[in-house]
Amino acid sequence: MINKLYFPPQNDKTKHTALQAVTKEQEHIGYYALPDQDITPIMDYAETIDNTATTIVVIGIGGSSLGAKAVYEFIRPVTALTRKLYFFESTDPVNITTQLEKIDVTKTHFLVISKSGTTVETFSIYKYIYSLHPHPKAYTFITDPGSPLESYASETGAAVLHLPANVGGRFSVLSSVGLLPLTLCGIDIRALLEGAKSIKESFFNAGYMQDTMLNKAVYYAKHHAQYHINCLFAYSESLKYFCEWYVQLWGESLGKHQRHSAFHVGLTPIGLIGPKDQHSFLQLIMEGTRDKSVTFIKIENFNDATAIPDLSLPHLESLDTLNGLPFGTLINMQCDSVMEALLNEKDIPIDTISIPKTDAYNIGALIFYYELLTSLVGELIDVNTYDQPGVEAGKIILKKKLANRAF
Amino acid sequence: MINKLYFPPQNDKTKHTALQAVTKEQEHIGYYALPDQDITPIMDYAETIDNTATTIVVIGIGGSSLGAKAVYEFIRPVTALTRKLYFFESTDPVNITTQLEKIDVTKTHFLVISKSGTTVETFSIYKYIYSLHPHPKAYTFITDPGSPLESYASETGAAVLHLPANVGGRFSVLSSVGLLPLTLCGIDIRALLEGAKSIKESFFNAGYMQDTMLNKAVYYAKHHAQYHINCLFAYSESLKYFCEWYVQLWGESLGKHQRHSAFHVGLTPIGLIGPKDQHSFLQLIMEGTRDKSVTFIKIENFNDATAIPDLSLPHLESLDTLNGLPFGTLINMQCDSVMEALLNEKDIPIDTISIPKTDAYNIGALIFYYELLTSLVGELIDVNTYDQPGVEAGKIILKKKLANRAF
Repeated sequence: MINKLYFPPQNDKTKHTALQAVTKEQEHIGYYALPDQDITPIMDYAETIDNTATTIVVIGIGGSSLGAKAVYEFIRPVTALTRKLYFFESTDPVNITTQLEKIDVTKTHFLVISKSGTTVETFSIYKYIYSLHPHPKAYTFITDPGSPLESYASETGAAVLHLPANVGGRFSVLSSVGLLPLTLCGIDIRALLEGAKSIKESFFNAGYMQDTMLNKAVYYAKHHAQYHINCLFAYSESLKYFCEWYVQLWGESLGKHQRHSAFHVGLTPIGLIGPKDQHSFLQLIMEGTRDKSVTFIKIENFNDATAIPDLSLPHLESLDTLNGLPFGTLINMQCDSVMEALLNEKDIPIDTISIPKTDAYNIGALIFYYELLTSLVGELIDVNTYDQPGVEAGKIILKKKLANRAF
Repeated sequence: MINKLYFPPQNDKTKHTALQAVTKEQEHIGYYALPDQDITPIMDYAETIDNTATTIVVIGIGGSSLGAKAVYEFIRPVTALTRKLYFFESTDPVNITTQLEKIDVTKTHFLVISKSGTTVETFSIYKYIYSLHPHPKAYTFITDPGSPLESYASETGAAVLHLPANVGGRFSVLSSVGLLPLTLCGIDIRALLEGAKSIKESFFNAGYMQDTMLNKAVYYAKHHAQYHINCLFAYSESLKYFCEWYVQLWGESLGKHQRHSAFHVGLTPIGLIGPKDQHSFLQLIMEGTRDKSVTFIKIENFNDATAIPDLSLPHLESLDTLNGLPFGTLINMQCDSVMEALLNEKDIPIDTISIPKTDAYNIGALIFYYELLTSLVGELIDVNTYDQPGVEAGKIILKKKLANRAF
């Protein structure tokens, strides 16, 4: 993975401060250790799931589903997997019905994932599915140790796995939350962690990533009042759900009251897919207010030889320059062209990330890169990167509404 | 459709100016007339497509695909349709291969849609598919009159339909661009246009929508420097692609150099789906910088009786208040709760749109509502709502790169 920044190097002292802060944070924030974990317990547990279960369903929302979905949807188009994976994330009744039509519950193993153990969406759906298929052995629960959900599961005789200590939902994809569903589908979770580890080691051992990521984080933090919208422009359909994962990670971590001021701050994430969004969001970046940074992600080798045939169409000869071009080359030329056009504007901060190919190692690297970048920026703009107090107010109102309807 | 604003009435003179401007614009901007068009030619043409074609594929990008996709994906989960519809929108080779695996080209009719008639993505994909299936009668082209594409199609003997005059790509869903693929799938395009017409008439004939939309447009325009991010928070999975359509419409129309200043302006669209994005983007809205407005969209009646069963789980009795609740009621309670929590903050502009149910009439109304709102705001912030000069620079660079590789 190569990350090239098109903006100037930043102040060394600030970079040093950021590096020290995240180095120290490793003592009490759990996600940093995930690339080095022993995955034997997860692999062993996965082995116990019967082969008659040909489908895995994750019942979970937000941090309990977005990470596994990002990896699964990245890998699936290019790899033959052993099981199908579906996500039940919505209380939309039509969506629940439609999703259920896709699966055979008797051939499905359900992973019910809720950190707190009391998520309204997750348990509404779980109750519905359990009433259709009341077999405790068809369910595995993943939750924090000591949650009410753990007590429930133990009592019904269902299996429970724990989230590691101090790993927040949106930083949990490299824990059991993401690793169990992914390994159950045959995705190489060892390679996933190796990829994450490559970024961690390069960063913390003064490798190439250290200075690069510090420059990027300091630039983003220093200019957060001006460039407060951070676009991720990924040139592959397979990164669509990675973008959704990024939106949660970035928005929920960095949109906060500052720790030591009375003010609201926030960096707004936007996920874009090229070339499609050249025909949608690009105009706004190019000619709109100068409040957006853009990071392009490119896959160097699509490992798919599909090419534009050598076909000349009468009256459309101007398109002959496309003939013979592999689509994988075209899409990367499109990415380069848009990147150069934005660079020419001079006042839009740009950087590019390129990964060699579509595999578990590279998505692992991307994941850890963004987690680390989020931690660095959060530290520098003085927010608590790891909480989400803003979502409580709506939950309290819902609870009251539910109590008022009851019996 | 009911639209309720939670911000104060605006200046009457400014509202009058905006109303006059869009009234006058009807003389030369084509989309305003689409709800009143005679659809007989489109219906008649659709009848000529053989019933052996069980699948329709749209080859198009941006304005050529987003609108039909928004309507199709909204209707599909609740209605039995007559044909399947797929969209080929990307030059991602893996995506092309994956999409092709889903269809039988010999049972497919292809709609190649390109306003200019020379879109790189569309013709790369067309050349590829045509080389696999070189049967001119399997293709219909939709383009501007006199485009090189029209000449090509005439020469090969394929059918051509035109876009109406002065209808831009992102305003074209209610023209042949959207209507042909939708009617071919059995979607009631007459009802779609009736829905659009209901908003048009209410607005232009001083009905309920006139004052409501003028207040909203003036508020958005007046505060565009502060509240420059406009979130659409739709509480139904079926509105996911409507959100994508909205993002193009809003971002590409309103992100511009001002006509009479030296400055860039822009309103940034964000599409969100509830309740999922309560677990992602909501924290940033609630506690981040006060630069976001939020519009909630709710479907009053999901027409799906799925309910949470009357099941009490040991240790999870706190969730018993959910028992017996239809999911359709729950999701709308979730929407109301989040809306009320944001309102309590006092400094986040909120409005709500509710539609009675999921059908062609209501999505038609939503579409025209947003097109009209875009026109109003564009006029008030002094941009040309209908062009997109910012996307040209990247195209020119790509053209050079392609020319340099050639022969």
